[in-house]
Amino acid sequence: MIVVMEPNATPSQIEHMVRQIEGLGLRSHIIRGTERTVIAAIGEKRGQAKESLETGPGVAAVVPILAPYKVASREVKSEPTSVVVGSLAVGAGALGVIAGPCSVESETQILDTARAVKQAGAGALRGGAFKPRTSPYSFQGLKEEGLKLLAAAREETGLAIVTEVVSPEDVDLVARYADVLQIGARNMQNYRLLEAVGGCGRAVLLKRGPSATIEELLLAAEYILNGGNPNVMLCERGIRTFESHTRFTLPLATVPYLHRKTHLPVVVDPSHGTGHSYLVTDMAAAAVAAGADGLIVEVHPDPENALSDGYQSLNIDQFRALMIRCRAIAEAVGRVVEPAEPSPFIEASVATIR
Amino acid sequence: MIVVMEPNATPSQIEHMVRQIEGLGLRSHIIRGTERTVIAAIGEKRGQAKESLETGPGVAAVVPILAPYKVASREVKSEPTSVVVGSLAVGAGALGVIAGPCSVESETQILDTARAVKQAGAGALRGGAFKPRTSPYSFQGLKEEGLKLLAAAREETGLAIVTEVVSPEDVDLVARYADVLQIGARNMQNYRLLEAVGGCGRAVLLKRGPSATIEELLLAAEYILNGGNPNVMLCERGIRTFESHTRFTLPLATVPYLHRKTHLPVVVDPSHGTGHSYLVTDMAAAAVAAGADGLIVEVHPDPENALSDGYQSLNIDQFRALMIRCRAIAEAVGRVVEPAEPSPFIEASVATIR
Amino acid sequence: MIVVMEPNATPSQIEHMVRQIEGLGLRSHIIRGTERTVIAAIGEKRGQAKESLETGPGVAAVVPILAPYKVASREVKSEPTSVVVGSLAVGAGALGVIAGPCSVESETQILDTARAVKQAGAGALRGGAFKPRTSPYSFQGLKEEGLKLLAAAREETGLAIVTEVVSPEDVDLVARYADVLQIGARNMQNYRLLEAVGGCGRAVLLKRGPSATIEELLLAAEYILNGGNPNVMLCERGIRTFESHTRFTLPLATVPYLHRKTHLPVVVDPSHGTGHSYLVTDMAAAAVAAGADGLIVEVHPDPENALSDGYQSLNIDQFRALMIRCRAIAEAVGRVVEPAEPSPFIEASVATIR
Amino acid sequence: MIVVMEPNATPSQIEHMVRQIEGLGLRSHIIRGTERTVIAAIGEKRGQAKESLETGPGVAAVVPILAPYKVASREVKSEPTSVVVGSLAVGAGALGVIAGPCSVESETQILDTARAVKQAGAGALRGGAFKPRTSPYSFQGLKEEGLKLLAAAREETGLAIVTEVVSPEDVDLVARYADVLQIGARNMQNYRLLEAVGGCGRAVLLKRGPSATIEELLLAAEYILNGGNPNVMLCERGIRTFESHTRFTLPLATVPYLHRKTHLPVVVDPSHGTGHSYLVTDMAAAAVAAGADGLIVEVHPDPENALSDGYQSLNIDQFRALMIRCRAIAEAVGRVVEPAEPSPFIEASVATIR
Repeated sequence: MIVVMEPNATPSQIEHMVRQIEGLGLRSHIIRGTERTVIAAIGEKRGQAKESLETGPGVAAVVPILAPYKVASREVKSEPTSVVVGSLAVGAGALGVIAGPCSVESETQILDTARAVKQAGAGALRGGAFKPRTSPYSFQGLKEEGLKLLAAAREETGLAIVTEVVSPEDVDLVARYADVLQIGARNMQNYRLLEAVGGCGRAVLLKRGPSATIEELLLAAEYILNGGNPNVMLCERGIRTFESHTRFTLPLATVPYLHRKTHLPVVVDPSHGTGHSYLVTDMAAAAVAAGADGLIVEVHPDPENALSDGYQSLNIDQFRALMIRCRAIAEAVGRVVEPAEPSPFIEASVATIR
Repeated sequence: MIVVMEPNATPSQIEHMVRQIEGLGLRSHIIRGTERTVIAAIGEKRGQAKESLETGPGVAAVVPILAPYKVASREVKSEPTSVVVGSLAVGAGALGVIAGPCSVESETQILDTARAVKQAGAGALRGGAFKPRTSPYSFQGLKEEGLKLLAAAREETGLAIVTEVVSPEDVDLVARYADVLQIGARNMQNYRLLEAVGGCGRAVLLKRGPSATIEELLLAAEYILNGGNPNVMLCERGIRTFESHTRFTLPLATVPYLHRKTHLPVVVDPSHGTGHSYLVTDMAAAAVAAGADGLIVEVHPDPENALSDGYQSLNIDQFRALMIRCRAIAEAVGRVVEPAEPSPFIEASVATIR
Repeated sequence: MIVVMEPNATPSQIEHMVRQIEGLGLRSHIIRGTERTVIAAIGEKRGQAKESLETGPGVAAVVPILAPYKVASREVKSEPTSVVVGSLAVGAGALGVIAGPCSVESETQILDTARAVKQAGAGALRGGAFKPRTSPYSFQGLKEEGLKLLAAAREETGLAIVTEVVSPEDVDLVARYADVLQIGARNMQNYRLLEAVGGCGRAVLLKRGPSATIEELLLAAEYILNGGNPNVMLCERGIRTFESHTRFTLPLATVPYLHRKTHLPVVVDPSHGTGHSYLVTDMAAAAVAAGADGLIVEVHPDPENALSDGYQSLNIDQFRALMIRCRAIAEAVGRVVEPAEPSPFIEASVATIR
Repeated sequence: MIVVMEPNATPSQIEHMVRQIEGLGLRSHIIRGTERTVIAAIGEKRGQAKESLETGPGVAAVVPILAPYKVASREVKSEPTSVVVGSLAVGAGALGVIAGPCSVESETQILDTARAVKQAGAGALRGGAFKPRTSPYSFQGLKEEGLKLLAAAREETGLAIVTEVVSPEDVDLVARYADVLQIGARNMQNYRLLEAVGGCGRAVLLKRGPSATIEELLLAAEYILNGGNPNVMLCERGIRTFESHTRFTLPLATVPYLHRKTHLPVVVDPSHGTGHSYLVTDMAAAAVAAGADGLIVEVHPDPENALSDGYQSLNIDQFRALMIRCRAIAEAVGRVVEPAEPSPFIEASVATIR
């Protein structure tokens, strides 16, 4: 951490800051420049409330040197983490595709979708049973009934199940049915929920909040990792900017940037990231080219009559075309986009819910 | 709702959309312009999944006409709502000031602050007992012990207590001690939590999420109002933008804009809204001039040694100066900035916790 | 400047960076922390291409310490600059109000407006003769004819004239008629134009670009100041963010922040800053409370029939109410909001154009 | 255009708005909904100051239906435009690559770069001779001397030359040496400059401003097209958002979105779009996968010692790797990424400057 003093800082102000730094258990080191003095604080530990140094007399700014996250960082673990859950393999070369409707609506809808996306090559089925909806007047999901339909779809197709959990008290229930628990963008900083999934024994797909920085995303992951759960996938799903022709702005540079900073795999959601079905396939292809470890795509047999998110859902034919294009790009750069072989883990989880 | 067709939309596409609109139980009305056809859909109800119309063949865009919120809107209730909780009066002319530290740290710290802010004219004491922290390594609050210290401060000073609740399962506990439950910015769309405080019997201070639109904020309020709780205060605390010289960007035009759209009172948080103590007083003054119904300000007896948010906390002298300036401005435009008389409600809630 | 090395940087990489720093004519100073090494580079001069250090081997980041601007900074000139041009006084306590239509449309329109805003207490008249319009199909202004009408309005009312210049080749022409040359937000980084007004002998109102940082704004001012023109007023007129209920987001914290960083006066434009006439007065009042040195407000005798910007223009009555409210607030905090006495400078410039 | 009335709008307000609409030469059509009345205005022409309708009594909002641009739109010209300039072919299937240093620094630097990028497969050479620099203290370019060096590089390598023009008065000079005139992001709304390049007889690369909407970009293109110049390439180079780990945020969904709205080709600049050389190749690959018609990439023989933008420049080896990866992706989706055969146009322009 570097404490930058004002140009006119007095010797006693500098001395005061040295004492403050040392009071935090750090060593201080003064560097006198031609226009300003800066004080390096050596030995800092993550999580100290050191920004309060900024309020010290004569202080212009405090510049942190260490990233605030630890367990998620490449510095601590340099090899990429691969998350393999039944038929879904994400990271370390493999490109996993998660596809399915925004909401589970009915048995027919979810089973038809599951069969179709599996046939097209997806590795997992997504579908919301607990829906966090902006409006209290919108469809809120089928709850446990939806989870049962997802489990039935897994039993028939062998696809791993990805579904959202919105509250700590639901974690056990959702974990009984699902292979991967999704933390939605609006819950990225719901710390109780992060702690709860840290101990749930299932893999987690953690979506970036629409105004979260990369540091905040990795600190959210750190909550889960610290709970003892190493199977965390990060998901870029778009940020809020002034652009209004897309629902969110999908900043794909996040993918290679995260690969430098963390060992966790990075999944991209081109459906929420654009908000228009006609942009999804191009952005899925771009994500693969940028090095994404996975895709999560909204697919619905009849988007025009979907109960939610129809405007950003692909129909089955469009999803097949997406898979063909993404596979071509992945192969062109030497990567694999096949579902993993269903593993005993899946069998076990299917067994559990019976 | 207006469905705008592409310039080259065919008659059968237009006919299809008319059927879709009527299938939603709406009346349709076709208007043929010189370059495009648009179809008005009449009779829409809030919360229908009508954006899916956007996926229809030949559709260029769907333009909603109705605001999606209802109970929070001026259309439904035209007179401003006033929230009065013990010594705190917010809205309908009164300007309530909530002040206190980011976190409750110790008995001395909270009692000293409570006495000082009361003496300066604040109407309520804030202080965090459950702290949602970006980093798992940061101080997480004193929990119930902190709530007890807040209640003790109320008993001595008569100030109403405002404190954050971060999880549905804590609502009962926090409501036993506090007069106003604060929903933090990162929980603005934690719908379970919103539902829980909707039935808690305490007033709620709902902070705007840093990337939430005004519509999303009002829909979040709608969750609480629908739960039967009319005592909701909205709080503008800054949004995330490209500006980096402030922690967030405080868009004060939100205040008069919200006053047009909703009857709920609007509180401004210049501490989080700027992130620098040296900007807080000017922005508090600006908020009052813009018509804010309340202020929530971080005050700490010794910001340099605060356990959290020291860089944006005023010390006692700075807070006194803020009150003098805000009172002068409020009076210049004919408003009152005095604490309310402690009401029986406060007595009751003090009694409850004994 | 601080060069932060990667945790695993090798001794030869560190040595290489020391040589690079010294090759720039700077002294280097190595600080070895517990996890990383940082190298302080001492003696830096503004404008060096030192970001290229970021590409050095083993470098994680380069943190600048000095602000990149100089002449505009408080470090170089600590007393606030006051710009006085005829009847307009801005800065150092005085609050100058510039008012008038977006575009000069006709003799009647501009003269009626001039009389009315003078009577209400404005210090200067604004009006566009050269209009930079987003669309090539929009009204582009009356050009020199408009300048003549502005000069006629000055002759009758004594108000100083503020008008925009959009191209270096027009600077001489505009400077013959106007007292203050405005650089529009979209031209804030049109460096040729900045250089041209640096030598024009007239005061300059420099508007912040909608995505410009404070540093970029001050560097743009630096171009003008370096041209020998000390009479520069900065203008906050709103930034582009995700908010869509206002045309731009008006971040008033810019006012006190700029006051810390620069001696130049700060004017606020609540008309462009909100884009809706019904928000202008509240935000003008807020700007005064935040310490703005001036306001620039769009006023039109008949906004509904204005050729441009009608939706954000006040009518005459609304402007009078704005002045009453702003004057009350200014007085409450001990400031003056009266036009200056017309000075010989104005007489001279009126004479020039005859 | 749709005029949405307030819920409590009176019959006389509605009547007034009908008269206003008809006063603009439009037909009006009233639709009475269950909660609001809306009035459709039929026959609107682009560029009318109709937003002023928003100020009408009882008006809640005005919703435009027509896109404000015309000549640039797909509605007017449905086949994609291809720009072929000497060895550079962009659009309609061909993927043109423009590469070279930020600034022309010396004969050796530009010739070495030109040879290397040609050998790697680039179709054109970029290099700045007139540099718009944020700071007046930064290197401002070699001016005409730089243009001569670029022309020399073309003579030796046959590569088309792309270089920036920053002021209308320089257009003739730059057009004597260059094949493509670049309008920089900060000049996207410098309308005089746009008009000047509209008549320059050279192709234009128009960069999107960092806070420009897509509509504003297309309206800027419209200025050039209206000047009689059909050879316009649009360039996405990143927008300003809250993200700070990249210099700008590169929103690649712009590529397919623009392809729906306009026939003009779309070039992507991954260098400015990320600001870090280590992210450039991944984002170039992503742009190709998203369907970009061209790339413009900063390449320097020795980025660490570049006079500008070193931190985002690739060295020669890195650029070669970029070309190999982009070519593989382009081929995988059936596209060509070869330079065009030098055409007589190039010969002519080389001849001109002798």
